[in-house]
Amino acid sequence: MRHQLLLFTFILSSVFSFAQSEEKIVEDFEPSVVNQPGKEFPKVNSEGRVRVKIEASEANNVQLDIGGVKYDLEKNEEGIWIGESAPQDEGFHYYQLNIDGASVPDPGSKYYYGAGRWGSGIEIPAKDKEFYALKDVPHGTVSKNLYFSEITRQWRRNFVYTPPGYFENLDKRYPVLYLQHGSYEDETGWSSQGHANLILDNLIASGDAEPMIIVMDNGYAYRPEDLEKAGGNRPRSSFEDVLIKEVIPQIDGKFRTIPNREHRAIAGLSMGASQTMSIIMNNLDQFAYYGGFSGTANFPGDKEVDAGTFLNGAFSNAEEMEQKLQVLFLSLGTKEAEIFFKTVNGFRDMLDRQDIDYIFYSSPETGHEWLTWRRSLYQYTQLLFKNN
Amino acid sequence: MRHQLLLFTFILSSVFSFAQSEEKIVEDFEPSVVNQPGKEFPKVNSEGRVRVKIEASEANNVQLDIGGVKYDLEKNEEGIWIGESAPQDEGFHYYQLNIDGASVPDPGSKYYYGAGRWGSGIEIPAKDKEFYALKDVPHGTVSKNLYFSEITRQWRRNFVYTPPGYFENLDKRYPVLYLQHGSYEDETGWSSQGHANLILDNLIASGDAEPMIIVMDNGYAYRPEDLEKAGGNRPRSSFEDVLIKEVIPQIDGKFRTIPNREHRAIAGLSMGASQTMSIIMNNLDQFAYYGGFSGTANFPGDKEVDAGTFLNGAFSNAEEMEQKLQVLFLSLGTKEAEIFFKTVNGFRDMLDRQDIDYIFYSSPETGHEWLTWRRSLYQYTQLLFKNN
Repeated sequence: MRHQLLLFTFILSSVFSFAQSEEKIVEDFEPSVVNQPGKEFPKVNSEGRVRVKIEASEANNVQLDIGGVKYDLEKNEEGIWIGESAPQDEGFHYYQLNIDGASVPDPGSKYYYGAGRWGSGIEIPAKDKEFYALKDVPHGTVSKNLYFSEITRQWRRNFVYTPPGYFENLDKRYPVLYLQHGSYEDETGWSSQGHANLILDNLIASGDAEPMIIVMDNGYAYRPEDLEKAGGNRPRSSFEDVLIKEVIPQIDGKFRTIPNREHRAIAGLSMGASQTMSIIMNNLDQFAYYGGFSGTANFPGDKEVDAGTFLNGAFSNAEEMEQKLQVLFLSLGTKEAEIFFKTVNGFRDMLDRQDIDYIFYSSPETGHEWLTWRRSLYQYTQLLFKNN
Repeated sequence: MRHQLLLFTFILSSVFSFAQSEEKIVEDFEPSVVNQPGKEFPKVNSEGRVRVKIEASEANNVQLDIGGVKYDLEKNEEGIWIGESAPQDEGFHYYQLNIDGASVPDPGSKYYYGAGRWGSGIEIPAKDKEFYALKDVPHGTVSKNLYFSEITRQWRRNFVYTPPGYFENLDKRYPVLYLQHGSYEDETGWSSQGHANLILDNLIASGDAEPMIIVMDNGYAYRPEDLEKAGGNRPRSSFEDVLIKEVIPQIDGKFRTIPNREHRAIAGLSMGASQTMSIIMNNLDQFAYYGGFSGTANFPGDKEVDAGTFLNGAFSNAEEMEQKLQVLFLSLGTKEAEIFFKTVNGFRDMLDRQDIDYIFYSSPETGHEWLTWRRSLYQYTQLLFKNN
C-alpha cells in the first residue's frame, strides 16, 4: 500500500513537474506581505504567482482558488501540499483553499472581509505600491465607533480616520469624506485592504491632500419592516437615511468637523459608487464633491442614460450641476469586466451630451479590485477641499 | 460504487446516531454570537456544546478541534460533515477544524488572534454575560495607533480605548490603564474577544468605574541585536523599555491623560501579568495600581518566593509597598491548570508572610481563558482611581 502510494506520488510528481517546467516559474518567491506573523507561506514571486503550502496528509485533492480559477496542488511524501497559481494582477486579491471539497481560509494568510466572507487575502506588490506604504511620516488614527440606529433598529459601527494632529490640535476643525465599500464588503474594507489611512497619511505629509476626516460606514442598512416585506429578496435600502439622518449628525457632534456642504465629500466603490451618487444627487445641500470608483448609479448600464429622467433629472441642468458639484470624479480599472465599462461609459456619454465637466481616472492593468480603488482614492482625495 | 458508499454512510450514521443518543444531546442549538454575518454554523446549545458543519464531499475525516480534544464529525449523503463537541466552559474559546489532516479555520466563524494564529473563536454564553454585553449606554471609542519604535526598529501599534465623551469634552483629562495580553496573543485581544471597551462602557455608565483611557499594546518587543544573539531561542524582551520610554510618552503627548503615577494603572493577563508586575516594580514612580490576571512574575511558580530577592527585593519593605501601591489585585479561574495556582498562590504566600494587603478574585468555573480575564478586568477597573 505504501509502495503503491509512493509510486502514485512519483508519477503525479513527474506529471506536475513537467507541467510546471513548461510554465517556467521564476523561483524568487517571498512570503506574502499580508501573512500571519511568522508564517512562511503563502508566497508571491516576481511574476505575481501565488504559491501556497498546507499539510493535509489524508487529503485526496487540495486546490488554490484565486481569481476564479482553481489550481491543483501537489502532495509530497510528508503529506504536505504545495502549488502555485498563474500570474495574478498587481494588488490585493481574495482567495481560499479547497481541501477535498471544503472551501476554507488559508491558515497562513491574514483575513479580510470581502466576497461576503471573512477569508484569505494576498497582495501582489504593485509597481506604484509606495503611495499606500507605511512610511516614516506622521500617522493619523483609525477609530471604531459604535452607534445604535433607530432606523435599522440595530447596533452599527463605522471606522473614522482622523488625520495626524487631530488629537493634539484641539482648536482645528476638518472637512469630512464619507467613503463607502462595495457589495459583499463592509465598513472594515477601506482601512484594512484599502489602506485609506496610509494613502491619506502619505498625501497629507507631502502636501498633496488637505488634512481631512474619513468616515467609513456599512452600506447595508435595512428597516426591519422592509426586511420582512422582502421575504428573502433584496429589501429596499435605508442607507441614505442612516447616513443623512444618523451618521452625519453623530460625526458632526463627536468630531471637530466643518459641518457644511463645501467641506463634505462623498465617494464609494462599485455598489458604493452607485449608492453615493444617488445620495449626493438627493442631498446637494449636504455634499459638494463626488467620487465614483468602478461604478455609477446607472449600473448595470444596459441602457442609454437619459439626463431628463436619470436620478430625477439631477443632471438635466448642467449649469446648476457644475455650480454645486465642485468635483465629479469617475474611475475604472483597465481590466474590469465589460459591464463596468458599459455602466461608467454610459454615464460619461450622458455627461458629455450635457456638457458637464468631470474627471476620469483609468487605473492601468487592474480589474474590479482594491488596487483600482486605492489608486482612485489617491487621485480623488488630491482634488478635495482645495478651494476652501 | 454509489450503493456501497450509501450503505457505508448508512452504517456510519447508525453508529454515530447511537453514540450521540447515548450522550443525550440537548437539541436547542443556536448560531454562535460570533459567527460571520449570515452564517448559520457553528452553533452552540444550552449545555455549551459546539456543533459545526462544513461541506467537504471528498474528505475522509473531518474533526472539530476544541479545548484540546478532536471530535469526529459525521458525513451525510450530500457530502456535508456535521458534529459536536462535549460541553465547553462558559466564555470564549479558540478552535479549528481538521480536514484530512489540515488544521484550518472554520469558514463560519469570525477570526481572532490567539494561540499564535488568526483563527476561529466561539462564545459559550455565560450566566453573567451582561457585564460585557453591547448595551444601550454611551460608548467609548477604540482607536488604532501606529508608531515607529526606535528600540525595536519596527512599526508597532496599540489600540486605545477612550471613554464616552472623550471626543466632545475637550477640557477633560483622564487616568490611564495600560493593559496587556498573554502569550501567543497580541494587541488586538483585549478590545476584540476581551471586550475591554464594552466592560468599561457598562461600568462607566453605572458609575462603578471612573472614566479612563485604556492602552493595549503588544507585549512582544525585541531589539534587533537581541533577536540576532538569541539565534532562535527566546530573546531578551525590551517591552519594558518600549512601554516606559516610547508608549507612555506618546500616549501622554497624544491623548488628554493625567500624566502622573496616581493616575496610571497597569495590568495584564498570564504572560502580561508577569511582564507588568516586573514593569511596575521597576517603575513605581510611574504607576500606582497593579492587576495580575492568571499570573504573577514568579511563573512557573515551582519555588517559594523569597521577598528579599524576588524582583530585586521589591516586596521586602511592606510599608513602602503599601504606600506606593494603591491596589494590588490578583485573580485566577477556578479551573486553571495547577501551574497557575502554584504560581499565583506562591506569590500570595509571600505577600501574606510580608503582611502586604492585596485583593484576590476567583473566577468561578473558568480556565486559563478570556472569561476569567473579562471578569478580572471588570473587578479590577472598579478599584482604580477612586481616591483621586
